[in-house]
Amino acid sequence: MDDRSDDGGRGDGTLLDGLFATPAMARLFDDRARLQAMLDFEAALARAEAAAGVIPAEAAVAISAACDAGRFDLAAIGRAAADGGNLAIPMVKALTAAVGGEAARSVHWGATSQDAIDTGFMLQARAGLDLLILETGAIGDALATLADRNRKTVMPGRTFLQHALPVTFGLKAAGWLSGVTAAHAELRLVRATAIALQFGGAAGTLASLGDRGPAVAERLAANLDLPLPALPWHGDRTRIARIASALGLAAGALGKIALDVALMMQTEVGEAFEPAAPGKGGSSTMPHKRNPVGATLALASARQAQALVPLALQAMVAEHERPIGGWHTEWVALPEAFRLTAAAAGHVRTIAEGLEVDAARMRANLDRTQGLVLAERVMMALAPTLGRMPAHHRIEAATKRAVADGTTLHAALAADAEIVATLGADGLAALFDPQGYLGANDTFIEAAGAAWRAARAPAS
Amino acid sequence: MDDRSDDGGRGDGTLLDGLFATPAMARLFDDRARLQAMLDFEAALARAEAAAGVIPAEAAVAISAACDAGRFDLAAIGRAAADGGNLAIPMVKALTAAVGGEAARSVHWGATSQDAIDTGFMLQARAGLDLLILETGAIGDALATLADRNRKTVMPGRTFLQHALPVTFGLKAAGWLSGVTAAHAELRLVRATAIALQFGGAAGTLASLGDRGPAVAERLAANLDLPLPALPWHGDRTRIARIASALGLAAGALGKIALDVALMMQTEVGEAFEPAAPGKGGSSTMPHKRNPVGATLALASARQAQALVPLALQAMVAEHERPIGGWHTEWVALPEAFRLTAAAAGHVRTIAEGLEVDAARMRANLDRTQGLVLAERVMMALAPTLGRMPAHHRIEAATKRAVADGTTLHAALAADAEIVATLGADGLAALFDPQGYLGANDTFIEAAGAAWRAARAPAS
Amino acid sequence: MDDRSDDGGRGDGTLLDGLFATPAMARLFDDRARLQAMLDFEAALARAEAAAGVIPAEAAVAISAACDAGRFDLAAIGRAAADGGNLAIPMVKALTAAVGGEAARSVHWGATSQDAIDTGFMLQARAGLDLLILETGAIGDALATLADRNRKTVMPGRTFLQHALPVTFGLKAAGWLSGVTAAHAELRLVRATAIALQFGGAAGTLASLGDRGPAVAERLAANLDLPLPALPWHGDRTRIARIASALGLAAGALGKIALDVALMMQTEVGEAFEPAAPGKGGSSTMPHKRNPVGATLALASARQAQALVPLALQAMVAEHERPIGGWHTEWVALPEAFRLTAAAAGHVRTIAEGLEVDAARMRANLDRTQGLVLAERVMMALAPTLGRMPAHHRIEAATKRAVADGTTLHAALAADAEIVATLGADGLAALFDPQGYLGANDTFIEAAGAAWRAARAPAS
Amino acid sequence: MDDRSDDGGRGDGTLLDGLFATPAMARLFDDRARLQAMLDFEAALARAEAAAGVIPAEAAVAISAACDAGRFDLAAIGRAAADGGNLAIPMVKALTAAVGGEAARSVHWGATSQDAIDTGFMLQARAGLDLLILETGAIGDALATLADRNRKTVMPGRTFLQHALPVTFGLKAAGWLSGVTAAHAELRLVRATAIALQFGGAAGTLASLGDRGPAVAERLAANLDLPLPALPWHGDRTRIARIASALGLAAGALGKIALDVALMMQTEVGEAFEPAAPGKGGSSTMPHKRNPVGATLALASARQAQALVPLALQAMVAEHERPIGGWHTEWVALPEAFRLTAAAAGHVRTIAEGLEVDAARMRANLDRTQGLVLAERVMMALAPTLGRMPAHHRIEAATKRAVADGTTLHAALAADAEIVATLGADGLAALFDPQGYLGANDTFIEAAGAAWRAARAPAS
Repeated sequence: MDDRSDDGGRGDGTLLDGLFATPAMARLFDDRARLQAMLDFEAALARAEAAAGVIPAEAAVAISAACDAGRFDLAAIGRAAADGGNLAIPMVKALTAAVGGEAARSVHWGATSQDAIDTGFMLQARAGLDLLILETGAIGDALATLADRNRKTVMPGRTFLQHALPVTFGLKAAGWLSGVTAAHAELRLVRATAIALQFGGAAGTLASLGDRGPAVAERLAANLDLPLPALPWHGDRTRIARIASALGLAAGALGKIALDVALMMQTEVGEAFEPAAPGKGGSSTMPHKRNPVGATLALASARQAQALVPLALQAMVAEHERPIGGWHTEWVALPEAFRLTAAAAGHVRTIAEGLEVDAARMRANLDRTQGLVLAERVMMALAPTLGRMPAHHRIEAATKRAVADGTTLHAALAADAEIVATLGADGLAALFDPQGYLGANDTFIEAAGAAWRAARAPAS
Repeated sequence: MDDRSDDGGRGDGTLLDGLFATPAMARLFDDRARLQAMLDFEAALARAEAAAGVIPAEAAVAISAACDAGRFDLAAIGRAAADGGNLAIPMVKALTAAVGGEAARSVHWGATSQDAIDTGFMLQARAGLDLLILETGAIGDALATLADRNRKTVMPGRTFLQHALPVTFGLKAAGWLSGVTAAHAELRLVRATAIALQFGGAAGTLASLGDRGPAVAERLAANLDLPLPALPWHGDRTRIARIASALGLAAGALGKIALDVALMMQTEVGEAFEPAAPGKGGSSTMPHKRNPVGATLALASARQAQALVPLALQAMVAEHERPIGGWHTEWVALPEAFRLTAAAAGHVRTIAEGLEVDAARMRANLDRTQGLVLAERVMMALAPTLGRMPAHHRIEAATKRAVADGTTLHAALAADAEIVATLGADGLAALFDPQGYLGANDTFIEAAGAAWRAARAPAS
Repeated sequence: MDDRSDDGGRGDGTLLDGLFATPAMARLFDDRARLQAMLDFEAALARAEAAAGVIPAEAAVAISAACDAGRFDLAAIGRAAADGGNLAIPMVKALTAAVGGEAARSVHWGATSQDAIDTGFMLQARAGLDLLILETGAIGDALATLADRNRKTVMPGRTFLQHALPVTFGLKAAGWLSGVTAAHAELRLVRATAIALQFGGAAGTLASLGDRGPAVAERLAANLDLPLPALPWHGDRTRIARIASALGLAAGALGKIALDVALMMQTEVGEAFEPAAPGKGGSSTMPHKRNPVGATLALASARQAQALVPLALQAMVAEHERPIGGWHTEWVALPEAFRLTAAAAGHVRTIAEGLEVDAARMRANLDRTQGLVLAERVMMALAPTLGRMPAHHRIEAATKRAVADGTTLHAALAADAEIVATLGADGLAALFDPQGYLGANDTFIEAAGAAWRAARAPAS
Repeated sequence: MDDRSDDGGRGDGTLLDGLFATPAMARLFDDRARLQAMLDFEAALARAEAAAGVIPAEAAVAISAACDAGRFDLAAIGRAAADGGNLAIPMVKALTAAVGGEAARSVHWGATSQDAIDTGFMLQARAGLDLLILETGAIGDALATLADRNRKTVMPGRTFLQHALPVTFGLKAAGWLSGVTAAHAELRLVRATAIALQFGGAAGTLASLGDRGPAVAERLAANLDLPLPALPWHGDRTRIARIASALGLAAGALGKIALDVALMMQTEVGEAFEPAAPGKGGSSTMPHKRNPVGATLALASARQAQALVPLALQAMVAEHERPIGGWHTEWVALPEAFRLTAAAAGHVRTIAEGLEVDAARMRANLDRTQGLVLAERVMMALAPTLGRMPAHHRIEAATKRAVADGTTLHAALAADAEIVATLGADGLAALFDPQGYLGANDTFIEAAGAAWRAARAPAS
């Protein structure tokens, strides 16, 4: 009835992978990888149990040899999954059949479906985190370079989308880097502390292994190079929720960059651009457009990744030793969150490594308000003499005159004899050079770079 | 590098379809269907434009003939999508190539990517809603039958998971039906009012069609049998958000049923069971278990469907004529919400149509509290004479005695001469028959059934 | 220890009401109103039961007289609420004490806490919906006027924040109106169909009223002017979730407007502005800024309102006859959603009624791309002769020349003899008048207005 | 028109504080505390600037003296906030007025609204985290004691709400402890690494302080005992999102405990109970009920806290140097998340410290399935001889016989001569003692306790 398997690879749910995944992350979380990760658990379990004398050594050899996802019929396993409600049950059945003979008796010995599924996911998650650590590492490096190179590239600082004061593009990139630094650190932290073996048997006691449970668990963890947790975590989903939260935080840091770039690419702003590529960002009907395609996809990916975090948080509130539904929602949400965060990272990496910065346009935009963005500076210069509020009112009045007359604030203030007397004509003019009103710009850029280098360093 | 296309259909993201989709809904929203829906738009557009004299009639014939998803390379289209940021751009390119010759000039004439994507989705959504309307129809019918047949099946009403008063299983089913009635009505409402053609051209004016835009739009809508909206809705995503909300509401009504069933299936409760099927709900290590597999999958599906609603709501807050990211999040969220809601419906339908009700166990559970669930009834019977608060305190004391002595409330009260004098020994005994304390049970069950029949009726 | 009650009204959680509520909606959902709504239920119940002969007529008089929230100690009720887990228990106790004497026995007769809480909320929700219907009505009217007045006000249509084609500000306003039309209709729909009495007694059977339950329910509904539902909905939270969804949809439509306005107010864009008011939007340190304060608060309110929708959806998945926690989350989420949606509406109404439109700036912005936004038009004019793809490439080449030479597209094309020959010099020039390339602009604006008037009309 | 300020403290939004906050956390985040925290920033800023020679020493004295929230009119500040869109603007105005004279000129010198608001929040958040660290500390201690004392308290392990294998209540408590350990560690981590000063001036450069910005920032941080970040984080909201995520994780760990307790309190289960208190959990109409009031409120609080996490994640995607709306959503979401998490912690602490455990009932429940929960054990004992699948089938058959005959599994197996021959009669009997089938129960409980003690220890 369902002819899906006959359609030559079409209709397989991967049409949007180019938008919302990267090839590498898609591979880590595709169907075959999901099955292989569970099989890796079974193989490692068999070896651990053989070493502990729980099953025969030959059984472990036979089981290990059979644990190759390429040999299994994924479609059949998928169809069978609905009966038991998870993939591990048909996987174990198929593996048992594949092993055959005496050794088949030893398959999945003492384990429960959740052990295979949770540990399998942890293996995938570890690889996924490694990939994201690499990607955010590259992004951070690119942003650190952008920040460093653009220390003097003045542009309008914008609050509420209004020009506020001059900043530099270097400082903006340092701000992005700050978010990526935290995301990178968080990903490394959960890589180091949330990833762990799950092995508890049917209800978390490893009862069927008698007194050999802890020994098997220890060897199993070693075989998979996974940390051994204090106790099984089938009912304590904090590890999963922490991974999801880390992905959500990373998505947020990436989305921030994408949004700023899209805003800078606006037709009226034009300060920075995603790297151009043939066919990229062109519109089928508007030959002149330069759409922020990468930023848009990064934003869409980040939003979707973040939308999955609540599922993982809710799944923590789990009924007893295995819940009715919460655990199951992790099976799609977490892989999707990895894919989407990777997509956001991939798009942002391309942007960060290839961003075209139009420093002249930044400077020109800064001048659009005819010096008004430096009004604060003049106010602060006048305030010690006039007081903050009077200075504020004086500037406000000059501002209105400048706008009404279509002139610059400099000109409007130069017409005020008292102000000229206070600041001097040259002093007044100097106040309108934005390079001189960047405060701690350099200090902050350097500090952001130093924080990045510290976060990037291998853990001691 | 990416050998996905060589892997013989494996690794294709459909391994969990058995858990979180139904075959029918999976087909409506698979990759091929997504492409076909966009091609259906293109074919209908060509015919509409030919009829309006915008393109040659022969071009429409050629384009229509080429609009068969089976002829296109989905993997190639997917790979190309990242460049322009959507599927329509490579789809139009591929279609143009497939049409060839003079007619190729007329492909996608006057339309924009969003027209094809949004209208394509609407075609899929219409079919998806129809499927869910059918499914919730069948569920409602099954629940109406359950409600009707179990009018006298007394069981504990439970508030905060504590026995409160007697209810009937019929009333519980009527409560479920009430939610399904609202969900069914909502799905029909959005089917009738949210589904619509999207056709606006590059910025929503149909400018490239000159003064023939409205005429083409009208014919296009007719060709696709889609309602023609007052104006294009590329920037007003209410229609999509309404569909998502309706799915979220349906998921909620279905999840409620699943949760109640899982709670009734508890080992200690055992009042009702999902229909048994070979291999279903069995545990690989615990041969005696009867896991609520369907209810669990329904709950997991419902939760995931609901988690997607916020994305659709957020996407309404869209930048100008086409947003940076919000629109894109609809592409996965809505199809997924359809698949997940269908999964929940499929599991709940199986449950509703095959539920095994253990009336004896329900009655036995009711008796576990030794008559305490009828304490309110005795209190209400005493209250007119003693006053509500004194009656409350009297019952409270008798309750404590009954619990302390391990006897029934009836016995404890029968030992209180004043109460016996007030109610009579027979009167007191009669108060402990739960069948006599069901209040408006029958009225409510009938009304729920009537409301269902009204909602189920074809729109006049 | 907690000196809250002594602090003269300070520290009361209302400091942000000016930002995230309106005075009118804040009043509808403040503590006193919450208590009064429950008391209104109790008074109406007493009258209904007296009329049905369930309690003495004098008791109803005494109870009604006592149902004045102004007489109760809210702080004491709040403190006592934690014991029973809801406000109705201490409210009923306090009311019973306030009534005193014989009549006290009749307080809350046959009802349960949930009846008072749910029905009380419905009374508040009805008033809240009425307020939002009024507000969205005013917003729709203002937008309809904006749309109508700006039919010819050309501006850049922006997709992905890039100039696409000319649109009019009237069409943009019509798009906003389209969302408000749907929101207004949805609010009216839930006002008409989701609002209802909740009255079921301890477990939904009205058992303690014997056979008089339905009669009392009918009178109670009439007394409160609330629709009588088919059956109690203590366990079916669809009504609440539908109200929440309607608020989320309204928030989305309002947020869309706010976002577009904030984008148009950007320093570089400057096309439209929130109405100025003394002190509004001024920055304490930047005297020249014109911050989109109302749009920002509308966006923040809309986002927060939408974030509450998932709670209401999740609460539908409720354990048995009264759940453990889900119901409780409605008590804050729904009132907050009303307050926040009202805040968004209030801010957007001010914007819609007072928006300053700078038509000259819109036109000037349109010219920034030197005619490139009309490239599609020229392409479409050439396509019938040259074919779509060749025309596309020709225009692309001219575009590049224009950008490289710093000239207009018109000039670049005028240098192409074949194009001039095809279109004529005058014909080519005419193509660059944006007023002539607005397609169905007027039709769409009119249709949006007509749809608004239909939605706004009193229900027949 | 708005008579709120005249209503004697009523209608102030605190009626539900008893349910969804604790007194201590409510005080930390009430209106007065919010204002005081901003004033603490202003006072510390003045002192820092005086020390750095930026403002006169006397001004700092005068400003510090005026920074007492008790002196300000909160209602007036709240009303004025809507104009500028935040509380800092009217706060600074009111403070300037309160300081008066020359010193008034120095108020808020070089700072921006966001500096006061963000740093003020950080001061509140630090205190809030300290409170939660204390509360989770107490909860963890109580759970560690429960785990330790109940090592031998056998009960049914439940997966999918079905009896699976025997576990101990100690192991269940150890599982809860595991979640609390992670939550406690996470709260301490964000306390140590996410809390920081925010001080950047109008656009993040501290330009108005010339070259003295970093020095002032350093002293300011010291004055407030806050870590000094590498650079201002006005546009990088990771810190806030990390705090929100930590609260969501803590809420999840607490909600898990509450859910399990509510399930154990079910009438049919009755294994453990929240501590009784006069008036707590009693129903107004059902004198016998023992509602899980604390667990219910903990669950409701946890759900609501988690629902706020997405707002903080979304707020990370912030426009440029100060966003349009995202930042504003933090102002309610974070304080609410603190209040709600504290409420969940308060309820769970009461439960953990006073839980009534009914070990006899646990054991009795375990026996309900007539030995079936030990079927796995027998199967594992038979498997080495018979093989896993044959043993499985043999047990399945015996199970069916036992259920059909209404006898125990032990009896059904004892009738199978081959099984008796394999295991011996005594051996078979011994398999049905649950105490002997607890596997690594003790090891896991000890390890959970050790992990708790490590997490609880003061950081070295």
